[in-house]
Amino acid sequence: MSEAVTYGAVTPTIVAELKRIVGDKFVSTSDDIRERYSHDEIPDPHYAHQPEVVVSPRTAEEIAGIMQLANRERIPVTPRGAGSGLSGGAVPLYGGIVLLSDRQSEILEIDLDNMMVVVEPGVVTAEINEQLKGSGFFYAGYPMSLETCYIGGNVAENAGGGKAVKYGVTGRYVLGLEVVTPTGRIVQYGGKLVKDVTGYNMVQLMVGSEGTLGIFTRIYLRLTPVPKESVDLLVFFPSVEQAIGLVPRLMSRTGIIPTAIEFIDRDSFGRSCRYLNESLPWENAGAILILTVDGSDEEEVIRQYEMVGELCEEEGADHVFVADNPTDSERIWKVRRSIAESYAMISPHQANEDLVVPPAAIPELIAGMQAIAERYGVFVPAYGHAGDGNIHTRIVKNPDWSLPDWEARLPEILDELYTLTARLGGRISGEHGIGHKRKPYMERFVSPEYLEVVRSIKRALDPQLILNPGKIFDV
Amino acid sequence: MSEAVTYGAVTPTIVAELKRIVGDKFVSTSDDIRERYSHDEIPDPHYAHQPEVVVSPRTAEEIAGIMQLANRERIPVTPRGAGSGLSGGAVPLYGGIVLLSDRQSEILEIDLDNMMVVVEPGVVTAEINEQLKGSGFFYAGYPMSLETCYIGGNVAENAGGGKAVKYGVTGRYVLGLEVVTPTGRIVQYGGKLVKDVTGYNMVQLMVGSEGTLGIFTRIYLRLTPVPKESVDLLVFFPSVEQAIGLVPRLMSRTGIIPTAIEFIDRDSFGRSCRYLNESLPWENAGAILILTVDGSDEEEVIRQYEMVGELCEEEGADHVFVADNPTDSERIWKVRRSIAESYAMISPHQANEDLVVPPAAIPELIAGMQAIAERYGVFVPAYGHAGDGNIHTRIVKNPDWSLPDWEARLPEILDELYTLTARLGGRISGEHGIGHKRKPYMERFVSPEYLEVVRSIKRALDPQLILNPGKIFDV
Repeated sequence: MSEAVTYGAVTPTIVAELKRIVGDKFVSTSDDIRERYSHDEIPDPHYAHQPEVVVSPRTAEEIAGIMQLANRERIPVTPRGAGSGLSGGAVPLYGGIVLLSDRQSEILEIDLDNMMVVVEPGVVTAEINEQLKGSGFFYAGYPMSLETCYIGGNVAENAGGGKAVKYGVTGRYVLGLEVVTPTGRIVQYGGKLVKDVTGYNMVQLMVGSEGTLGIFTRIYLRLTPVPKESVDLLVFFPSVEQAIGLVPRLMSRTGIIPTAIEFIDRDSFGRSCRYLNESLPWENAGAILILTVDGSDEEEVIRQYEMVGELCEEEGADHVFVADNPTDSERIWKVRRSIAESYAMISPHQANEDLVVPPAAIPELIAGMQAIAERYGVFVPAYGHAGDGNIHTRIVKNPDWSLPDWEARLPEILDELYTLTARLGGRISGEHGIGHKRKPYMERFVSPEYLEVVRSIKRALDPQLILNPGKIFDV
Repeated sequence: MSEAVTYGAVTPTIVAELKRIVGDKFVSTSDDIRERYSHDEIPDPHYAHQPEVVVSPRTAEEIAGIMQLANRERIPVTPRGAGSGLSGGAVPLYGGIVLLSDRQSEILEIDLDNMMVVVEPGVVTAEINEQLKGSGFFYAGYPMSLETCYIGGNVAENAGGGKAVKYGVTGRYVLGLEVVTPTGRIVQYGGKLVKDVTGYNMVQLMVGSEGTLGIFTRIYLRLTPVPKESVDLLVFFPSVEQAIGLVPRLMSRTGIIPTAIEFIDRDSFGRSCRYLNESLPWENAGAILILTVDGSDEEEVIRQYEMVGELCEEEGADHVFVADNPTDSERIWKVRRSIAESYAMISPHQANEDLVVPPAAIPELIAGMQAIAERYGVFVPAYGHAGDGNIHTRIVKNPDWSLPDWEARLPEILDELYTLTARLGGRISGEHGIGHKRKPYMERFVSPEYLEVVRSIKRALDPQLILNPGKIFDV
């Protein structure tokens, strides 16, 4: 993955070998297909790169065969889920093979007695909860993109979601993985076990490793009882400080862990409302929180939201709107979900960022973001998971700028944003991953000693450096 | 760690070097001290081994210096917490240096705005919650031995506790670690961040690695709001099947995640009651559960325990006792905690085991344990964390046997117990660790491919194989 590594080419002989492993119709070298699998959801084409061949295996054994071949010939292999990533993690930077998980899309087992499911990596995440309907259980680790993403990609990125304050992110629910190692062995990490200290925690090392340490072929997930009732509160605060300061006091005073604590800055909220023709009275707000509480019955949830609502008012909130039915709830969340589209109206040229800081540092982060926005004349909105310290932004091109101007200035803007994040003890990704998009900035956030350790692990597991090369850090 | 490795001896010159690093009075080679640090809480002296020198450093820099010296001279180093382990993890199998954490016992920071604490590894775990009293927060990851163990040992073993069903084990709360690597570098993994996907999840690889991959010098822990109310239910079931079968149905039907679901077999419960002169009417029970529910107010908890109690009765429970005050609660938990002592009355010769199986396999595990007990004429009690599938046992010597008879037969009994556990898809440790006590059995529970992977990680991080050698697996 450093410049010095020379990879082998995918020759017609190798294409023939791949066809023998997975079957003729599951190997493609066509221009269309290679183009389709050259990018993820990052709009900027600079981050794209075409593979030489696209392979769609069905089984772990086939993948092991492909990895053995790739090791022999030193061909890079890039695993891909739904391609809904935002960091370029599934882009085959050095060409070679893109490995699809589309044909590994079975929910293998729903084991309610153990409160677990066993799934293949190519299952669309929402499908898991669809299949669990009526069982009393659900998979709680899903991210906001659950309708399109694959569970394998969620595990590879350790995806987070709106409910992470109470329920945590993907990794909390992954109990076991069947993995094809970079050298082409099939290995089981963990399993149908809630606790297990028999050896190293390889499961959690794999979670979030962005497809650089192994290819998942089977995923064991823990289930959670479905909360019987849930209510959303939309709360308008005079200032960011008051909104963020509420979070620890809310938990310590009430003992309640909200399911979600979403932050939205005033401009983003207003812009999304205007985009949706939504009449919520945001004009005088300084910052907005969406708070969700859930529980095992209606009375409990009513009491919880009353306690939360009262505390918000004590802490200076101007308005507390209660959404205790699906229509009102959808109205609130639609504003949250439409922020991205509302900014797309200004310009399609954007840099999506995924900052994470100690939660109490959010007000300082947001003040700094606003200063950067003003200094450069761009938009730097702030919204995301306040309870986790995870703030999303998208730097939006000033529509008056030419594209070359934007491309010239963006690195400087990002540089300032990352410098600010580092100063606050933060990191550059809470849930989207480093991929290759954020790789150039890694050294600013982790030490040379850290890089030495993770490089040695990468080398130990993937001595030929062929699995998803060029991602997270250079070896 | 394989027999072929030859370690260097701790010569007077090396002792002098160690004294220069940490100060004269923090290095000891006396017989008393070497004896004191030759064992953990395993009673069997076969598992003990003396170090050549015991060192008590204060800072990460001193530990880094010791590790650099140890690398240069290839001297084994075994880190030690409170010595309350049950798997021989802190025993210096190859002599060399035992590294104490007693002087690293400061709570460095209580950061309520971020809901985190930063502690040194030698802090007694209970001390953390002592210091948090009145704050509205607590550290929820503590194990049952919290009054004596150190937090550093909890992290090294990924210790679990009675409240793990709802709150999870130690690892869920560890957000960051400062670590001295086996080669003597100081590195930071994670930090004051709730979410972080910037690089590999080194924090969770360190958690549970039993002191073989690094020495923790600073631990960042997440806090949880204190539940305002808590109630315990003691439930008598006619059979093990009914008690265990309740668990998933309870969660799916009520949506409630109990804080604790502890299982106790009839004989253990009765024996502990007799030991305590406790008059609870256990005689007709087939199996016993202790269920705890907690919540943010009294009404909520009352409704929860009523729902749980009714469901227990629907599922065939004979009696449901409600302990809604500290006196009754203590009465119930005292029975649970006194099981070990009550079996010590029969014989001090015991093998403590820590089996974990898919939760629904508990009835089959317990039936098999009872069959083994009858066949060999020993006691094989079953109790522990039913919600997690983690069953503790202690094989207790038949008091009529001679000690040589016991020592001759124990391996065969353990062998049968582990064969049964493996057949049920289980593992040999849920929370106590492998150490060197269970190392000989590892190959029965993990594949050669798994061992190849973890060995390569060990070699990558500790090329001289000097950090806690001989533990978990042979390299």
